[in-house]
Amino acid sequence: MIVILKQNTENARIEMLINKIEKMGLSCHYSAGAHTTILGIIGDTSTVDINLLRANEIVEDVKRVSEPYKAVNRKFQPEDTIVRIPGSEGKEVCIGGDFFCVIAGPCSVESEEQIVSIAKDVKKSGATLLRGGAFKPRTSPYAFQGLHSQGLELLLTAKQETGLPIVSEIMDLSHLDLFRDVDVIQVGARNMQNFSMLKALGHCGKPVLLKRGLANTIEEFLMSAEYIMAGGNSQVILCERGIRTFETFTRNTLDISAVPVLNHLSHLPVMVDPSHAAGLPWLINPLSKASVAAGADGLMIEVHNNPSAALSDGAQSLTPAQFNSTMDVIKSQVLFEGKQI
Amino acid sequence: MIVILKQNTENARIEMLINKIEKMGLSCHYSAGAHTTILGIIGDTSTVDINLLRANEIVEDVKRVSEPYKAVNRKFQPEDTIVRIPGSEGKEVCIGGDFFCVIAGPCSVESEEQIVSIAKDVKKSGATLLRGGAFKPRTSPYAFQGLHSQGLELLLTAKQETGLPIVSEIMDLSHLDLFRDVDVIQVGARNMQNFSMLKALGHCGKPVLLKRGLANTIEEFLMSAEYIMAGGNSQVILCERGIRTFETFTRNTLDISAVPVLNHLSHLPVMVDPSHAAGLPWLINPLSKASVAAGADGLMIEVHNNPSAALSDGAQSLTPAQFNSTMDVIKSQVLFEGKQI
Amino acid sequence: MIVILKQNTENARIEMLINKIEKMGLSCHYSAGAHTTILGIIGDTSTVDINLLRANEIVEDVKRVSEPYKAVNRKFQPEDTIVRIPGSEGKEVCIGGDFFCVIAGPCSVESEEQIVSIAKDVKKSGATLLRGGAFKPRTSPYAFQGLHSQGLELLLTAKQETGLPIVSEIMDLSHLDLFRDVDVIQVGARNMQNFSMLKALGHCGKPVLLKRGLANTIEEFLMSAEYIMAGGNSQVILCERGIRTFETFTRNTLDISAVPVLNHLSHLPVMVDPSHAAGLPWLINPLSKASVAAGADGLMIEVHNNPSAALSDGAQSLTPAQFNSTMDVIKSQVLFEGKQI
Amino acid sequence: MIVILKQNTENARIEMLINKIEKMGLSCHYSAGAHTTILGIIGDTSTVDINLLRANEIVEDVKRVSEPYKAVNRKFQPEDTIVRIPGSEGKEVCIGGDFFCVIAGPCSVESEEQIVSIAKDVKKSGATLLRGGAFKPRTSPYAFQGLHSQGLELLLTAKQETGLPIVSEIMDLSHLDLFRDVDVIQVGARNMQNFSMLKALGHCGKPVLLKRGLANTIEEFLMSAEYIMAGGNSQVILCERGIRTFETFTRNTLDISAVPVLNHLSHLPVMVDPSHAAGLPWLINPLSKASVAAGADGLMIEVHNNPSAALSDGAQSLTPAQFNSTMDVIKSQVLFEGKQI
Repeated sequence: MIVILKQNTENARIEMLINKIEKMGLSCHYSAGAHTTILGIIGDTSTVDINLLRANEIVEDVKRVSEPYKAVNRKFQPEDTIVRIPGSEGKEVCIGGDFFCVIAGPCSVESEEQIVSIAKDVKKSGATLLRGGAFKPRTSPYAFQGLHSQGLELLLTAKQETGLPIVSEIMDLSHLDLFRDVDVIQVGARNMQNFSMLKALGHCGKPVLLKRGLANTIEEFLMSAEYIMAGGNSQVILCERGIRTFETFTRNTLDISAVPVLNHLSHLPVMVDPSHAAGLPWLINPLSKASVAAGADGLMIEVHNNPSAALSDGAQSLTPAQFNSTMDVIKSQVLFEGKQI
Repeated sequence: MIVILKQNTENARIEMLINKIEKMGLSCHYSAGAHTTILGIIGDTSTVDINLLRANEIVEDVKRVSEPYKAVNRKFQPEDTIVRIPGSEGKEVCIGGDFFCVIAGPCSVESEEQIVSIAKDVKKSGATLLRGGAFKPRTSPYAFQGLHSQGLELLLTAKQETGLPIVSEIMDLSHLDLFRDVDVIQVGARNMQNFSMLKALGHCGKPVLLKRGLANTIEEFLMSAEYIMAGGNSQVILCERGIRTFETFTRNTLDISAVPVLNHLSHLPVMVDPSHAAGLPWLINPLSKASVAAGADGLMIEVHNNPSAALSDGAQSLTPAQFNSTMDVIKSQVLFEGKQI
Repeated sequence: MIVILKQNTENARIEMLINKIEKMGLSCHYSAGAHTTILGIIGDTSTVDINLLRANEIVEDVKRVSEPYKAVNRKFQPEDTIVRIPGSEGKEVCIGGDFFCVIAGPCSVESEEQIVSIAKDVKKSGATLLRGGAFKPRTSPYAFQGLHSQGLELLLTAKQETGLPIVSEIMDLSHLDLFRDVDVIQVGARNMQNFSMLKALGHCGKPVLLKRGLANTIEEFLMSAEYIMAGGNSQVILCERGIRTFETFTRNTLDISAVPVLNHLSHLPVMVDPSHAAGLPWLINPLSKASVAAGADGLMIEVHNNPSAALSDGAQSLTPAQFNSTMDVIKSQVLFEGKQI
Repeated sequence: MIVILKQNTENARIEMLINKIEKMGLSCHYSAGAHTTILGIIGDTSTVDINLLRANEIVEDVKRVSEPYKAVNRKFQPEDTIVRIPGSEGKEVCIGGDFFCVIAGPCSVESEEQIVSIAKDVKKSGATLLRGGAFKPRTSPYAFQGLHSQGLELLLTAKQETGLPIVSEIMDLSHLDLFRDVDVIQVGARNMQNFSMLKALGHCGKPVLLKRGLANTIEEFLMSAEYIMAGGNSQVILCERGIRTFETFTRNTLDISAVPVLNHLSHLPVMVDPSHAAGLPWLINPLSKASVAAGADGLMIEVHNNPSAALSDGAQSLTPAQFNSTMDVIKSQVLFEGKQI
């Protein structure tokens, strides 16, 4: 961490600042030049609040040199984290390392018939987990908000019928009990910085699928994962789902570079959700391939048996038949990468 | 709402779609051209889910013509909403219409001495409400997270000492009981689309200060206010606090146009938080003046008695002395606008 | 094109507007509802200026239904455009359709030794065109601005030595004569909306490589290509090179979705420049693969024989050895796609 | 400038880098810590190319501490630059310092009658310069492109009739001769980084109004002004006109903070163009007031005698009557600021 001091600062005040920094258990290199005086802070600065230093009257600016996250940092754990989810017949579903996974299913659970039928279809095509929303974050209070606990029960029915582990989004911590049989708890993009929720999920004992917020940097994304890991839960799956930019042709802009960057900075598995990134079903094939080619550990794809009757997000869903041919494309690229699916 | 149909669609399928729309209680105008066929949907479309129509196989695109919000819409309530907060000695603090308010205080409540001293100072300078964070949303799990319920108690002490009504941010619905004596509940930018929270605040019986999310459009901002009003709570204050853009000199980009746009679209009061928008104390004066000139109903400004020792966001805080001279600038512009402060 | 009229407009004024539209050779469908009155404009609206209609006092808003571009539109030319560049020994270098190309070379031409050596290296590794900047757009007036006409001469020397056709960026129309022996003229991102230049290149008789502006939408990108084609030049190559967003880890955000979207909307070949998009050499491999997987027709990659001594953009350049192994990755993915390289 | 070195770098290579830096006439402070080794570069680094240092194999990252611009920097010229334009009857029009100016006129010059009539109207209302486009940058090749040299002649006629100095946009350097009688040459947002043009304008001997590019940072904006000043022309006027963000309600997002930031960083006068920023005529009043309150030195406003018949950008133009009442608002705020108009 580098502290740039204001010009013409009295030595006494600089010494006070150096003392303050040394009291945090860090050491300080002082370097004075004609136009600029710099303090180089040496030690573990990941827990130092950069804004506190910036608020000091003699400080012009502060720049970080090392990452502000530790538990998620690949520097401190070089080997890939593999998240393991108990599946049917004693088989585990693995995410990360050489294990590629595909999570598929409808935006919302709508009825037993709907979710069981889709579950069977996506399993046949090769999906390894089933997704389905029971609590839905909707921009409008007048839009369908999900079937709530009944939706979770229907998901469990579909799990029993197919053996597919299930993934569903939590929107309110008070619902945590309802998720006791859900295999992977999803944190949606709008809750990526709901820090109360992240802290609680740090103790939930279940894998967490954390989606990137639509205006959050890669560093903030990793800091949110750090919240969960700091609570003791190391089963975190990162999911890039598009960021908000000025481009309006696609619903969001898939930040494909985030995949290799996250792989570089962190040991956690990285998935991509091309359905939400694109918002257009005909883009799911090319974006899925591109994501695998960029190094993703999995994909999350919306599938609905009757998109035009879907109660939410039908416009971006694939039909089971379309998903089946998308899976052919995905599998072929995954094998080309030398990964297992 | 306008539905653009795909080319060469069979009449039978178009009739099915028209029937579906008419069953929602809406009527349909059909207009066929050489290259484009259009359905104009007439009626109250504010509760129609645009994505459901888009998912129909024969639909190319759907475009909204009228706003998707009702309760917050100025078209349905032309007169300004004035939020009224009981103050000391039987006097109300009003926000909206001709009443200008200034909310001031530290980012975080740190100690009784700190909050009482700041409260006295900002009251003397003319602030009408006291702010202070007890639960703090921090990007890093290792940063100071606030004093929690103790922080709220210290705020209440400061209220008793000064008579200033208090504003504090809620981060978790399960804390709602703790906020029973807080005068205005703040929803932070990161929770603007925490729909569970918005729904609950629709029944809380207290004024809500809703901050704009850093990547949310004006329409989404109003839809979040609509969530609160749809629950029966019409005491909503909108607060622009800067959006995230490519510019890095300022912490965020203050969207000054949002002030007159929100005044035009909605009857709710509109405040501006220049402290978070700018991130630099020397920008607070010009941005405060500009906000008043653009039509804001109030300002929210961070003040700390010792910014360089602050436990959070000190870098953007004013000292009480700086705040006092900022208030001179603000008051003079407010009077120039013909408003009361 | 759909015109939404203001409420309570007199019929006489609506008739005047309809007459005006019909005088443009278009026809109009009138559709009046309880809350909204709409005119549907039928005919070729690609040359209608949407802002002129919007300025009419009785018009609330105007929405486009069909694309504002024609020559570049795949609807009017379903088959892929293949740009053909005469190569050495009578062989053509083709871009588009099933032909994949790789343009490689340094950011700036620095000396004969440098450019000839790099040209030989990239040819050996499989590049099909040589790039090199003679006129460099630099943010700072104090940075190296290129060798100008001497740089173009050195590029021609490298072409003679290797047979590789050459690509170089034009920054000023008055230099057009100097580019007479350059095979492909590049328009940089900062000049994507330099309309005087686009018009002139419409008559230059050479292939043009048009880079997307860093804050330009896909539609604006296609409109700039339309400028060149409207002048009679159909040899246009589109190049996605990253857009500017809030993310700062990468130099720009590669908009990978732009590749399949451009392929869908237009018949022109689409390339990707991962060097400028990422700004980090270790991201070039994954982004190159992802671009091929997403359907790109080519890649443009910066290669320098001594990146740390480069006079510009060395930080994002590959060494010839790194490029050689990147080419292995690219070729293998290109063959997997069934394309020729 | 701070150079962060990669971990475990050999001393010999560090010494080579230090030598290289010292050969540029700079000195180096070396500071080695447990996890990070830093070189602090001392001296005038404004002309150092940060990317060249970054490309060095032993360098992890480089961070700038001082600004990369000199001529435009307020640190090196504390007093405001005042641009002086000869007006009618021996009176100068001044921009900067305490002198506020308003540039008004149509987007495009369309006819003698139109431009002379608007010129008379805006003069009567208090505008100090007349704007009018002769060469128009249009997204579509099919839109009206301006009257070219005839447009400039009509502007000169309007100048003769009213005495108002004139401002017009240059799109092509080869037109520079045509601008010999134009008082202020405007560089449009799309040409802000047309470096060939900026260099030429550095020798043109006329005031230049430089508009901020829609995706350019404040630093890049100042670097473009530095190009003009580096050529010897110190009569540069900066103009904020909105940046591109995710918000679509307004045409662009007016970056109001840019006004006080530019005033802080540079001595050059700063104007605001609310017409292009907002794209909606009813936003011009509040945004004009806010700009004056934020410290702007002038405003540029589009006025058309018949907006719905305008050949370009009518939708955002004021009528002369609307402009007259806007001028009342502006004058009153300008006087409140203690400036002259």
